[in-house]
Amino acid sequence: MRITLAQINPIVGDIEGNTKKIKNIFINNDLATDLTVFPELAITGYPPKDLLEKKSFIKKTQIALYDLVRFSRHCSKKGMLFGTPFLDKANGKLYNAAILCCGGVISSIHKKTLLPSYDVFDETRYFNSSEKLFLSYFKGEKLGISICEDIWNVSNFIPKRVNYPINPIDSLAKMGATVFINISASPFHIGKERIRYKLISHYAKKYKTPFIYVNQVGGNDELIFDGRSLCFDKNGKPIIVFSGFKESVQDIDTKSVGVSNFKFEDEIESLYEALILGIRDYVKKCGFSKVVIGLSGGIDSAVTCVLAKEALGSSNVFTISMPSMFSSRGSISDARKLAKNISVEFKIIKINNIYRTYIQGLKSFFLKTSFGLAEENIQARIRGNILMALSNKFDYLVLSTGNKSELAVGYCTLYGDMCGGLNVISDVPKTLIYKLANFINQNSKVIPIEIIKKAPSAELRPNQKDQDVLPPYSILDKILSYYIDEGLSYEDIIKKGLDPATIEWTIRAVNRSEYKRWQAAPGLKVTAKSFGFGRRMPIAAKYE
Amino acid sequence: MRITLAQINPIVGDIEGNTKKIKNIFINNDLATDLTVFPELAITGYPPKDLLEKKSFIKKTQIALYDLVRFSRHCSKKGMLFGTPFLDKANGKLYNAAILCCGGVISSIHKKTLLPSYDVFDETRYFNSSEKLFLSYFKGEKLGISICEDIWNVSNFIPKRVNYPINPIDSLAKMGATVFINISASPFHIGKERIRYKLISHYAKKYKTPFIYVNQVGGNDELIFDGRSLCFDKNGKPIIVFSGFKESVQDIDTKSVGVSNFKFEDEIESLYEALILGIRDYVKKCGFSKVVIGLSGGIDSAVTCVLAKEALGSSNVFTISMPSMFSSRGSISDARKLAKNISVEFKIIKINNIYRTYIQGLKSFFLKTSFGLAEENIQARIRGNILMALSNKFDYLVLSTGNKSELAVGYCTLYGDMCGGLNVISDVPKTLIYKLANFINQNSKVIPIEIIKKAPSAELRPNQKDQDVLPPYSILDKILSYYIDEGLSYEDIIKKGLDPATIEWTIRAVNRSEYKRWQAAPGLKVTAKSFGFGRRMPIAAKYE
Repeated sequence: MRITLAQINPIVGDIEGNTKKIKNIFINNDLATDLTVFPELAITGYPPKDLLEKKSFIKKTQIALYDLVRFSRHCSKKGMLFGTPFLDKANGKLYNAAILCCGGVISSIHKKTLLPSYDVFDETRYFNSSEKLFLSYFKGEKLGISICEDIWNVSNFIPKRVNYPINPIDSLAKMGATVFINISASPFHIGKERIRYKLISHYAKKYKTPFIYVNQVGGNDELIFDGRSLCFDKNGKPIIVFSGFKESVQDIDTKSVGVSNFKFEDEIESLYEALILGIRDYVKKCGFSKVVIGLSGGIDSAVTCVLAKEALGSSNVFTISMPSMFSSRGSISDARKLAKNISVEFKIIKINNIYRTYIQGLKSFFLKTSFGLAEENIQARIRGNILMALSNKFDYLVLSTGNKSELAVGYCTLYGDMCGGLNVISDVPKTLIYKLANFINQNSKVIPIEIIKKAPSAELRPNQKDQDVLPPYSILDKILSYYIDEGLSYEDIIKKGLDPATIEWTIRAVNRSEYKRWQAAPGLKVTAKSFGFGRRMPIAAKYE
Repeated sequence: MRITLAQINPIVGDIEGNTKKIKNIFINNDLATDLTVFPELAITGYPPKDLLEKKSFIKKTQIALYDLVRFSRHCSKKGMLFGTPFLDKANGKLYNAAILCCGGVISSIHKKTLLPSYDVFDETRYFNSSEKLFLSYFKGEKLGISICEDIWNVSNFIPKRVNYPINPIDSLAKMGATVFINISASPFHIGKERIRYKLISHYAKKYKTPFIYVNQVGGNDELIFDGRSLCFDKNGKPIIVFSGFKESVQDIDTKSVGVSNFKFEDEIESLYEALILGIRDYVKKCGFSKVVIGLSGGIDSAVTCVLAKEALGSSNVFTISMPSMFSSRGSISDARKLAKNISVEFKIIKINNIYRTYIQGLKSFFLKTSFGLAEENIQARIRGNILMALSNKFDYLVLSTGNKSELAVGYCTLYGDMCGGLNVISDVPKTLIYKLANFINQNSKVIPIEIIKKAPSAELRPNQKDQDVLPPYSILDKILSYYIDEGLSYEDIIKKGLDPATIEWTIRAVNRSEYKRWQAAPGLKVTAKSFGFGRRMPIAAKYE
């Protein structure tokens, strides 16, 4: 059987545009293919979130669904399989479904069985679970069709999160599937493609059945979908593995024999590409073309800036240095050098005078108090105000530049450096920022070495260094990974041999910063546990 | 049967404190009572959110659970019924449960059947559904015990949201329950207590069975729990209805005969009390005692200020006027008058100079551009910076003062007037703000009449009025209610007889402001559909 895998980048909510894209691919593709496969919820893009609660939206999806079915008559020899919300008129329930159609009529409707409701997923909020699994007889094959999470009920590949009652792939195999197809919208995080690869290969091999996997690609708010659609032969060897992070449409024959060796992309390179796609899609899908970034001369804003330049082109990135009396000599020159290296516009606004007028205005209030957090944050918020003024005036989207380690312990200023439409690296721990910087510099010194070598500093008071307050980043990132990513407790982390006082400090800092993260800009998710939508913590609470 | 209803205000996550509170009430209460009933998830407070994903947290809840059970031996004649997460060791699954214990042993464990997963609720993210309903034989009665949502699977009281498979109360009735008990954590919204009252009365009457309902009270982040625990006799007449918005412990006898007439609290009074509780609990549970509010001389900040004074006392409310060259003459004097009326501290910081230094710093960038949104927002963000500086310096929590109508259409400045730890009135439409103001003024002119009478204005440019840009609030609020609260589409709203161009403007404004609301402070939910956690919209999207 010849199958076309259509790894598309839909826009969330844009039913008309997405449907058009599906039609174009279907009609322009090789006529000799038997079936063109699109990702999960291809009509709406994933995740449509509470758009699914609007009756008018659901109605439009149903119109689009039947429109696509009718359209399939234009190539009557080819089938089309696509994901869509499906409102079952028989019971009034909404499903996350895959529609198989051919020659203008529906062949079968496959409802998703396992609905994820953890981390960033909310599917039980909207959808009902399939009542019945079955095979679809199509072009001489028995297709075992499933949707995303349906393949994930396994415990030997990932820690089991949910006690799902069944494994739909096992069930479809027992029924005698001759080809497995899974349509997905499976978001990227570092290393996930390896798990996915092994998992799907395992099914193919175990059941001696080719397995086709078609994943959405593109950035949607916090989530980056890497695509990396693939097909395994019946021995679990890859016939094709799509490149990540771009749209792609390719044919395979399920009878092909896969290759023996497959080389995974380097993890840092993968992260780099993910962030670029995440920026590009967020900026464009929000209707912007240009961004503004405050360059401090530090590594976080430097890495963010290089990523933005890769995503949008040099002419669409505007950078600005906003030094105060506390900025080091290098902060302007290093930033300027970086901007020059990547050919982005660079300007300077000194904030000393503005800062002084605040202090003047607050003088009678701040009498007899000493320089402290308030004075530091005023500076950060002046910078935020300037960035937003440029945004408002010139229609730039502000990219904020805080890393995950800072955001975790609240070492950042709400409405200050946290200002922005998108926080590019908010899920990248500081230690990983350095790896990204070195990756960027592997062929040429894009990021000036001074920026990489200098001790991190917020430069909000004389001779300030991050390490005056924070544990060394190598230690901090370890504790954060245990506490946030793995969900371990204070007692658990002590067993890992780390200093109890440091652990305690870190946990307290994380817990008391929830209020800042509640108001943080959307940040690109690149680890298994990011701040944002997938982590829902109370604020006015008392724990740990 | 004599039952004590314990309407408590737990702190989310504070297992130790909540357990202590439960023990104190249990042991200090009348010995002659047969059973003391506490709300849903009383051990953790509701909603504990992702604390439920922490293994160490769940472990602590299980220790507390068995500790409470053992504690029940101290009054061996009394039973205790309380809500808690329950980790069933038999299957490793987590449940939202009610534990009935007496004399140091567990009598029965009742798992919640219907798990809400809509609006602000995420229960399918954490919990599993009960496999089995049963009655508990206790002191000669057959108790039909249920938890919160279990009573809500009815279509004649509210629009049916979810196709739940069963109605647990009907099932318990069929088994022969002689007393119904429902433990809840049911958040307030305007008018909800009437629905709840009718619903529970309906069950009591239909099944000729007394019905006890114990609800949590208190503010937890966005949610305000009104309590209003109650008991109906077997004819559906109220034996007792607790006052809303405060902790209360009272006994009833299920054999008592209810009264004929019950008068509901006025809706505006109820809203007023809800907001006061919401402020008080958020501020205190976050560990603050004082707040700062920017007084503009407008009605929104005036109402917020009066509510804060009621919640925290005059001495804990600090107010500041921050006029610019665009502020009207009345903006200072009206604000001062209000502050004087309620005896809160009032200061002035003029922002003219600070604003000028920004414009000076941005001069070379803003050449040949005319005064616009950028210049307006700079002013709002200067005010935000000053409020936050006072917050950082003196440990005030900033209360922001934007109303629901503004927030809906994005008529507010991100990082400007949106700054704050809590947005008090973000779920109160402008037209309702006026009603609140009149309610506040019903006995004496607390809010100066000038504040109520003046045309709303952001005062960010000469002679600006809200109505220059926005539709009249009476129209706007109608459209917003249809679009946001009821989820109607453009076409649906046209059928209501409103102007198509105004509807279109409003819908566009709402949709393009999602990015602002993503970063908004938590706001107190007082309507059936508020912005915040219960409304999850994509940003980089294209729809309607």
